[in-house]
Amino acid sequence: MNCVALAGGVGGAKFADGLARAIGAESLTVIVNTGDDFELYGLHISPDLDTVMYTLAGIANPDTGWGIAGDTWRNFEMLERYGVAPWFRLGDCDLATHLLRSEMLADGQPLSAVTRELCRRLGVAPRVTPMSDDRVRTVVETEVGLLPFQEYFVKHHWQPAVQAILFEGSEEAEPAPGMLRALETADTIVICPSNPYLSIDPILSLRGVRDVLLNATAPIIAVTPIIAGEAVKGPAAKLMRELGKEPSAVEVARHYADFVNGFVLDERDVALADQIKAMGIGVFVADTLMKSVDDRAHLACDVVSFADRLRPEKLGGCRLNRADGSSR
Amino acid sequence: MNCVALAGGVGGAKFADGLARAIGAESLTVIVNTGDDFELYGLHISPDLDTVMYTLAGIANPDTGWGIAGDTWRNFEMLERYGVAPWFRLGDCDLATHLLRSEMLADGQPLSAVTRELCRRLGVAPRVTPMSDDRVRTVVETEVGLLPFQEYFVKHHWQPAVQAILFEGSEEAEPAPGMLRALETADTIVICPSNPYLSIDPILSLRGVRDVLLNATAPIIAVTPIIAGEAVKGPAAKLMRELGKEPSAVEVARHYADFVNGFVLDERDVALADQIKAMGIGVFVADTLMKSVDDRAHLACDVVSFADRLRPEKLGGCRLNRADGSSR
Repeated sequence: MNCVALAGGVGGAKFADGLARAIGAESLTVIVNTGDDFELYGLHISPDLDTVMYTLAGIANPDTGWGIAGDTWRNFEMLERYGVAPWFRLGDCDLATHLLRSEMLADGQPLSAVTRELCRRLGVAPRVTPMSDDRVRTVVETEVGLLPFQEYFVKHHWQPAVQAILFEGSEEAEPAPGMLRALETADTIVICPSNPYLSIDPILSLRGVRDVLLNATAPIIAVTPIIAGEAVKGPAAKLMRELGKEPSAVEVARHYADFVNGFVLDERDVALADQIKAMGIGVFVADTLMKSVDDRAHLACDVVSFADRLRPEKLGGCRLNRADGSSR
Repeated sequence: MNCVALAGGVGGAKFADGLARAIGAESLTVIVNTGDDFELYGLHISPDLDTVMYTLAGIANPDTGWGIAGDTWRNFEMLERYGVAPWFRLGDCDLATHLLRSEMLADGQPLSAVTRELCRRLGVAPRVTPMSDDRVRTVVETEVGLLPFQEYFVKHHWQPAVQAILFEGSEEAEPAPGMLRALETADTIVICPSNPYLSIDPILSLRGVRDVLLNATAPIIAVTPIIAGEAVKGPAAKLMRELGKEPSAVEVARHYADFVNGFVLDERDVALADQIKAMGIGVFVADTLMKSVDDRAHLACDVVSFADRLRPEKLGGCRLNRADGSSR
């Protein structure tokens, strides 16, 4: 099995973790959004890469979904004593990642190699790759002006109404080494339940990615990040309203309609299935909420099985023994 | 009163703190060795500046003399989890200093301005200045080869025998802005009880410094870092033996004999007073160990009064009400 997942932060990380559990780490490649990357104190911060890496390493903070479980804030408190009140809080342990990453980047290593090395050191077995080694920065055009992504997201708590989203540098940026080839040779491609506009679109904006997806022989499955008109986490639904779209799974399916073969709809939205099927997209209905680690694995197992039904020859793939005895 | 102190790390910091308490912060300028500075994870670390700054801010770790009291090691533990075992441990709070300093330096601010700003934010009232805004690096020629200072000092715990000490960059480096002028206009100059070879010599190696001291009108007093043939802390005595010198206060006095007018000898070494006086240097005998904060202030008060006796017109200067009623 050879599955490639496109992911952003928390939702994508949880689903990628489920995939690793369902199909085995060696069968999984995760391509991660880096449009949210930014610099703080000269350190290179890659929030989505970190969330995916920490989640796959089993050290993610279960309450926030980002950062490291049990992290402390002594460094932050000292920064406050210095009169600096950064709007982006870096935990004491989390800082180690940024220090090492920044040092390796300064030594001239590309972000993909740095990510591979950090993952190796944390015992993360799936291949995790940034979408690009080049600088791409998501910039949000809002009612209060252009905001770099983290200012919009963290500093302003995604409250300013969004008018447009730009991916600075994406036209010049190369997809990370091996990334297009991984998509071409995948037997399953999954768009994780991440924000389509802020987390997945930066990846799709890179040269060649959309073409590879349009020509892919592997089934491409998108998992909804919208349940009953609301995002599980983050600004997706609010953003959709501001962009003049109805916040619903149907709109998400439409966003990916050019290239997806299957869509995983939440069971709370089963009434929307026909609208999505009408776009020529297969639909699988599931509980997509992933409250527990088991939920992640079970959902991933179901999604892989769903993909299997969308291609001529069956690959199987899910290794889980489902507690309910199903091997859907 | 206008006192300028030359200082290295722990001993220098304690004595500078005593001076600030004895004569008032506004009367004190501390010139600090930066030959020990180095880079770790791309961060600029200034160990002696930090020790002086933390000590004057009242937040220095009383047990180690360096670092911040009550600091924690979560970041370090995470680095260990990453398989990195840095030989220089940075505490979680301490890291805030390095992050801010590095960011300000990267923004193009000189180290002297950065130091002023960090001190201001920590409420440190004396003027603290690095000896230079330019890069000077102490390199130790040892039996195992050339070692950058921190490798010699921390990684190898100053165990390799020293053959020579070099100050890379000191010929090209400019003394920090205002530093020579501060020495010229001082009414008291004190060489703190710091390592003469590793902490004070880097300052003396800078262009113009030795000339200013040779021509100074102010009394120049050195406080011994050697008591009964041993350093209070660190490698001074061991180093002296390795350099073929007798580890004694007499050798320290001889090292500074060109320009000092007075020498503060520890009471345990009173028998050496005549040898130092024979060099034409005034001697004041005191308990120089500085076990408590009060000890620092009392010693500083005595040193300032000693300086006062070495010049024609008396300035006074010490503001302390000595518990023993003396106003020596």
